[in-house]
Amino acid sequence: MSDVTAGILLIGDELLSGRTQDTNLATIAKFLGPLGVQVREARILADDAATITETVRVFSERFDYVFTTGGIGPTHDDITADCIAAAFGLGIGEREDALDMLRERYGDDELNAARRRMARIPDGASLIDNPVSQAPGFQTRNVFTMAGVPQIMRAMLPDIVHRLKGGALVHQITVTCAGVGEGDAAAGLAEIEAAHPGVGIGSYPFFNDALRGVSFVARSRDEAQLERVRSALEALVERLGGG
Amino acid sequence: MSDVTAGILLIGDELLSGRTQDTNLATIAKFLGPLGVQVREARILADDAATITETVRVFSERFDYVFTTGGIGPTHDDITADCIAAAFGLGIGEREDALDMLRERYGDDELNAARRRMARIPDGASLIDNPVSQAPGFQTRNVFTMAGVPQIMRAMLPDIVHRLKGGALVHQITVTCAGVGEGDAAAGLAEIEAAHPGVGIGSYPFFNDALRGVSFVARSRDEAQLERVRSALEALVERLGGG
Repeated sequence: MSDVTAGILLIGDELLSGRTQDTNLATIAKFLGPLGVQVREARILADDAATITETVRVFSERFDYVFTTGGIGPTHDDITADCIAAAFGLGIGEREDALDMLRERYGDDELNAARRRMARIPDGASLIDNPVSQAPGFQTRNVFTMAGVPQIMRAMLPDIVHRLKGGALVHQITVTCAGVGEGDAAAGLAEIEAAHPGVGIGSYPFFNDALRGVSFVARSRDEAQLERVRSALEALVERLGGG
Repeated sequence: MSDVTAGILLIGDELLSGRTQDTNLATIAKFLGPLGVQVREARILADDAATITETVRVFSERFDYVFTTGGIGPTHDDITADCIAAAFGLGIGEREDALDMLRERYGDDELNAARRRMARIPDGASLIDNPVSQAPGFQTRNVFTMAGVPQIMRAMLPDIVHRLKGGALVHQITVTCAGVGEGDAAAGLAEIEAAHPGVGIGSYPFFNDALRGVSFVARSRDEAQLERVRSALEALVERLGGG
């Protein structure tokens, strides 16, 4: 089974100024992992129409799925829907079913022009349900456009899962080794990886004033092979005198 | 004074799997902001040589400065130095001054082949001091290559600040409005932005079960203009009945 891949676009000036700490990437990655969809690249983009449009086009061709977060609210800097439409040469307009969703929340008196912007959806897109604040996300071809606010974005994922064709599951194990530096383990680690094709091993040092250590994270579709790697890593840890 | 721009590359599979939550982007952005250097785009890349090399080349041309984090440790998946060299067609080899730094930490007995990899630096680069764990970062043309571990990355920034030509300072104010939805404020916000050229205003909703509100963040090089925007935003908040 070939890889199923994803690219993620996190949109918003506030992510690039350091004002807001993104957490959506990790949420989406952890959602996709168990479905066998691997995130290959993420980009954090400013509220700039040309960049967003071009990047959506590139990512849509390069990856099986694209997820965008941010820029679908009611204000003037919310331009993601227009950029998606432009990326695919689609029209865009207010949609009655999306307006109905907004009416549920706002009623006709609060549904002003700004909020009606949230019902502007690229032609032919299918809506993504938003149980938190109603304003929908939408799917355009292989691109899923979601809210930027983490609790809303998260609430949209259940209406996406059934639309994805998953890949082979990638399993993961972690072996931790305290009291040893990453450089002590590097040679043994390279041997283990060479001896176990199909398993990728990452090595992540941690330390504070009192302690240093390394976590080894191995990933593979082959669970039996992964268990052999676990044994080999545990033997390496013992040989190094860590624990 | 024209804009001084930066692009940031965060390198490592662990950031894309959701295993590790990046914090380096916000740290670097907050470091650059007061220097008048604006982060225009960030990309989170897998440990893939072709992608890293090509992206370094693109970013180096597109932005005044590029900052990379991750992939300069002692293990086989630490490939950033080689990618930087490849991006600029430079040779790469062990450097005596970098080895000296490593010897300070490890002594000759612990300085094995894996750790010596951390002294492999692209030809002509200048080293960036690492007071935490000695293995240096390095500057190649307009690209600054730093560690991925946040406490090490942060410790490298002081040896970078004097190398940057800053831009005009961008000032920022925040006006917060509780009890009001983003959509209620959107029209007034657009008017304020239109009436105050040179000021960018972002609108960031927040809410929980009990409360909703919006923060308006305005940024400009022109402090006097920014103060006028502050007054206009405060008047808008009062008109909307928020506080």
